[in-house]
Amino acid sequence: MKQISFLLTLLLITGIIAITHAQTPDLRANPDRMQSRIEALSKFGANPQGGVSRLGFSQADIEGRAYIMELMKAAGLEVRIDAGGNIIGRRKGRNNDLPVILFGSHIDSVPEGGNYDGDVGVIGALECIELLNANNIITEHPLEVVVFSEEEGGLTGSQAMSGGLGQDDLDRVTTSGKTVRQGINDIGGDADNIHTAERSKDELLVYLELHIEQGGVLDQKNIDIGIVQGIVGIEQWQVTFTGKANHAGTTPMNMRQDALIAASKFVLAVNRIVTSIPGTQVGTVGIINAEPGAPNVIPGKVTATLEMRELSRDKMLKLHAQIVEETKKLASENSVSVEFRSQNLDIYPALSDPGIMKLISASATELGFSHQEMPSFAGHDAQDLAKITRMAMVFVPSKDGISHSPQEYTAPQDMANGASVLLRTILKIDASDH
Amino acid sequence: MKQISFLLTLLLITGIIAITHAQTPDLRANPDRMQSRIEALSKFGANPQGGVSRLGFSQADIEGRAYIMELMKAAGLEVRIDAGGNIIGRRKGRNNDLPVILFGSHIDSVPEGGNYDGDVGVIGALECIELLNANNIITEHPLEVVVFSEEEGGLTGSQAMSGGLGQDDLDRVTTSGKTVRQGINDIGGDADNIHTAERSKDELLVYLELHIEQGGVLDQKNIDIGIVQGIVGIEQWQVTFTGKANHAGTTPMNMRQDALIAASKFVLAVNRIVTSIPGTQVGTVGIINAEPGAPNVIPGKVTATLEMRELSRDKMLKLHAQIVEETKKLASENSVSVEFRSQNLDIYPALSDPGIMKLISASATELGFSHQEMPSFAGHDAQDLAKITRMAMVFVPSKDGISHSPQEYTAPQDMANGASVLLRTILKIDASDH
Repeated sequence: MKQISFLLTLLLITGIIAITHAQTPDLRANPDRMQSRIEALSKFGANPQGGVSRLGFSQADIEGRAYIMELMKAAGLEVRIDAGGNIIGRRKGRNNDLPVILFGSHIDSVPEGGNYDGDVGVIGALECIELLNANNIITEHPLEVVVFSEEEGGLTGSQAMSGGLGQDDLDRVTTSGKTVRQGINDIGGDADNIHTAERSKDELLVYLELHIEQGGVLDQKNIDIGIVQGIVGIEQWQVTFTGKANHAGTTPMNMRQDALIAASKFVLAVNRIVTSIPGTQVGTVGIINAEPGAPNVIPGKVTATLEMRELSRDKMLKLHAQIVEETKKLASENSVSVEFRSQNLDIYPALSDPGIMKLISASATELGFSHQEMPSFAGHDAQDLAKITRMAMVFVPSKDGISHSPQEYTAPQDMANGASVLLRTILKIDASDH
Repeated sequence: MKQISFLLTLLLITGIIAITHAQTPDLRANPDRMQSRIEALSKFGANPQGGVSRLGFSQADIEGRAYIMELMKAAGLEVRIDAGGNIIGRRKGRNNDLPVILFGSHIDSVPEGGNYDGDVGVIGALECIELLNANNIITEHPLEVVVFSEEEGGLTGSQAMSGGLGQDDLDRVTTSGKTVRQGINDIGGDADNIHTAERSKDELLVYLELHIEQGGVLDQKNIDIGIVQGIVGIEQWQVTFTGKANHAGTTPMNMRQDALIAASKFVLAVNRIVTSIPGTQVGTVGIINAEPGAPNVIPGKVTATLEMRELSRDKMLKLHAQIVEETKKLASENSVSVEFRSQNLDIYPALSDPGIMKLISASATELGFSHQEMPSFAGHDAQDLAKITRMAMVFVPSKDGISHSPQEYTAPQDMANGASVLLRTILKIDASDH
């Protein structure tokens, strides 16, 4: 009986897999093509250390964008630049009244950056188009590949598309030396009519983005694909401890109001409280400074920063409240006062669409890739798009977790795995959502 | 029986006190005279905040010294200035072949200093002379009142007297803007013949110094007199923690090598280890700095200072070894390395003479003053004199422990108590040591 039951189960599972495979063609991205395009793109703004300094709106950016637009055109896409300077390459679907499946990333970099942050998402999106072309597949929905403008400076292009780019933002001076306004105009946008870049909820079915992890989790755990649960919210606080500066010789240990003792306990409390419950939340003290700052003076004042990042704003604020409570208690035990002042970043979490996360998971499984869910702890254009459509992201490993550096590296096969998952997810959405 | 026994005991004690009093005349310093002389001296270099900025070798210093020399002469002292710029006022004894009982302090101040640091010791020494004059007492030994030159800059006068002032020291630029060489010459010294300021062991019987505590122990415990056990040794270390700087978002809590976590544990370990055994030893972390120093970057490097002060060099070095051992252990537990680099201050402890400490104690008791033994955690000319003669110091309370500040304050009666103890001790030494 047991054997028969096992065989029946096996048959059932095989059948389900067969049916699923039948629904989605088994297309695999080409790692060599992707790698050669990454290398070609890396020539624009190449820096001596082997990475790129392709600042948004710079000449290198303009030349890199021209290269991408050529690839788009060669792949048969209808290319336009919106008012925000975003490059949009459109591939018609069977039913062009249906909302658009939008996917892409950016190609601008930080100063002294690497060759993968953003670029993998753009080259990966083009790879999807190449595979559809090669297999003569026409989707139901129109597809649009997007290259957002000046992501590294302030998510400029995605802000424009989601309606969040104000007049103040246009006056900001970017790392290229140009204002956003000038930069947008220089790359073919139209800053005076920036609102025309906005997309409505009705126009878009979904936004998908392939990106390198920029952290070391996938690389360390040897996992192929990260399914992004969302982009974390971020808040920062300035924390000031006030004790009493005094002579480090003549003030006995038990008569001190040493602000650094309290601050040190705070640093350890942050670490303990943040890791006291399960989850991927992070808390960091990155700056600390003791005043007056002499070897022979007891610190009377210590200023420090606290940064917290978490997918759930509620959870983050609860942990923060616990940190404040414990810090006030421990400071008072050391005759020191403490003040937390929020820097009001107001960066709220942007959550991925759970249904699309399931399709990404199914796609990775079907393609034979190991995968795990994880938050994105860095910001992405996807967080702006989440305001106007369903959003999801696919992560691929970053070697040693290094990013924003010429040492940034993702292997060709890892890039290809990500593009294969992206395409399979697009096809699943296309097949189910109409 | 009990009552008779009690009365006998009382008689016995009274008898002892009477005998002791008979041995040493009961002379009491005049708080009003001392206060009016402190006020007069405070006019030279007076600063708007109510203290003085009477930098060694400055015009204010020269004028203040002239005022003191007038008081000396009026009190019948033979006044001279030695090659180191020290003012020496001599009062002959009955036997001038006997070694000198030397006592005094300094009148120069730090920038934005107060009216008591040093000054109380000089005015107190003069008060002793006034009392001897008023009571027609001639000591066996010659007495010398000394005003050391530029104490605050580097114990210049006492270095010259103890043979520690080298040619390099003469080239040092002082807070007055002058070199030590120029300064010494400007106040009547003779830098070219600096060695003539040296005193031999045979010439001096003892050096005594009255000084404000510059800490808050006596004031807080409401104790009249501090009997200084010695001047503590001081060492400083530069402590460097090296972890790995990383993105505070994308690096999970359990993948961090946060140098600040290790450094915070070090700060607490210093405090715990230094207070783990009885004693007055102190340890201080006065500087801390995290690099690269941004709210969103995990500190990869932290530099801090450690300063320790203790009367016993052995004890200090044992505690330091324990700090190094525990810090290396805790750093390694956090995947961080640590290095301690000695700043080679090589400031060795200078111990008071135990016999003279007993005479100070007896004097304070006989005068009805509460007293306790304590180290001096700040440097004094007495530490140089300890190299060539027996040394001891008398401390009086500093209000709230404040020093090197215009807020520095010692009440007239407290100054007078110190001068009374100083004189009584001088008379006891004079009576016993010949």
